[in-house]
Amino acid sequence: MTILMYDLVGKDASRPFSPHCWKTTMALAHKGLDYERVPTRFLDVPAVEGGASKTIPVIRDGETILSDSFAIALYLEKTYPDRPSLFGGPGGEAMARFVERWSQATIHPYVSIVAVVDINAMQDDENTKYFRASREANFKKTLEEVTAGREAGLAAFRTSLAPLRSMLSYQPFIGGETPLFADYIVFGAFQWGRIVSSYPLLEKGDPVLDWFERCLDLHEGLGREVAAA
Amino acid sequence: MTILMYDLVGKDASRPFSPHCWKTTMALAHKGLDYERVPTRFLDVPAVEGGASKTIPVIRDGETILSDSFAIALYLEKTYPDRPSLFGGPGGEAMARFVERWSQATIHPYVSIVAVVDINAMQDDENTKYFRASREANFKKTLEEVTAGREAGLAAFRTSLAPLRSMLSYQPFIGGETPLFADYIVFGAFQWGRIVSSYPLLEKGDPVLDWFERCLDLHEGLGREVAAA
Repeated sequence: MTILMYDLVGKDASRPFSPHCWKTTMALAHKGLDYERVPTRFLDVPAVEGGASKTIPVIRDGETILSDSFAIALYLEKTYPDRPSLFGGPGGEAMARFVERWSQATIHPYVSIVAVVDINAMQDDENTKYFRASREANFKKTLEEVTAGREAGLAAFRTSLAPLRSMLSYQPFIGGETPLFADYIVFGAFQWGRIVSSYPLLEKGDPVLDWFERCLDLHEGLGREVAAA
Repeated sequence: MTILMYDLVGKDASRPFSPHCWKTTMALAHKGLDYERVPTRFLDVPAVEGGASKTIPVIRDGETILSDSFAIALYLEKTYPDRPSLFGGPGGEAMARFVERWSQATIHPYVSIVAVVDINAMQDDENTKYFRASREANFKKTLEEVTAGREAGLAAFRTSLAPLRSMLSYQPFIGGETPLFADYIVFGAFQWGRIVSSYPLLEKGDPVLDWFERCLDLHEGLGREVAAA
């Protein structure tokens, strides 16, 4: 049965951009499952599957409705054990949580700063109003003031990727010789940045960029189906 | 057969302090193997097992001589597969490398700053001479100038532990419900700090400190056999 995957978009339904939704899309592709992406705007989220979650991704797999990209990955691993593993065993499952918290603490805040104005510009009028109001309340600054800080933060951001960069001198993926969900966690953050903004998060020659390009090639170039901003 | 484990000490042979040696000691205990720690000073390292390595830990297991804490953990996992796993499968093995690079980039530089003067004071005359000269050449500062920076760096250091702290709201160990080698990697860094210096790296109430205390309790309180500085 086809799994429904509620996927965040702006005005253009063909450009899903949420980092967390991309984690789930890659996880579904990794498992080789049939899925259908349901384009969902910010203001549509509360009505998804009768109010299943305040955030997406949400999936419906038969009678099962589930939110949260990590919880969905755990569910897919348990429900489809004969498909390629997303975690490579219990140790990988536990440590993927560390990778998730690292990505969330290290990459997400800076991509937010870089891209809030661009993300806002991708929304229709109604969603722009929602996005600007909610994000400006979080940041306690206008979106334009937030993004004005991106130049000042770029060098520190690139330096903060040192653990990932250093690890890539040992192996091509976070998952080892082949990718696991932990790769999709970090991929989601960079794919978000790639789709919403033309700002160069990574320099040419950076092993992190080479890894990201390898991730874009996975599953028949799934990540490249949406062009860079 | 008893495994020999060459373990870095200063003047006091009963106070092994190297972060990397502690990783190996904990890994040997985790596997429930018989081992004997061979107290080794900095200047003794080049002669260990006929010049097997420029650094310790080095282990001798029968005819096998091996250096590098991560390589030793991989060897123990492969050689003693029926003992408790250090990695929890191939995913955990791959992601332990990420944890190692994170620990090395995040914790080691600051503990070095905090503790170089204290580490120097633990050495005998000959080793003090070696340690001061080699470390001052690396830092391009006197040891005292290096450590003078520790107050200024403390808040940023504690903040940099956010990924570990956040992960600990999901599970008690990096390895999940029980510890794996990834825990020993990070434990080694804090145990190094604990043994060489009384400087409070972690605040009371910090979940990272609670996790470290749990690690000190493991294997019948192995880590507590050496008192805090």
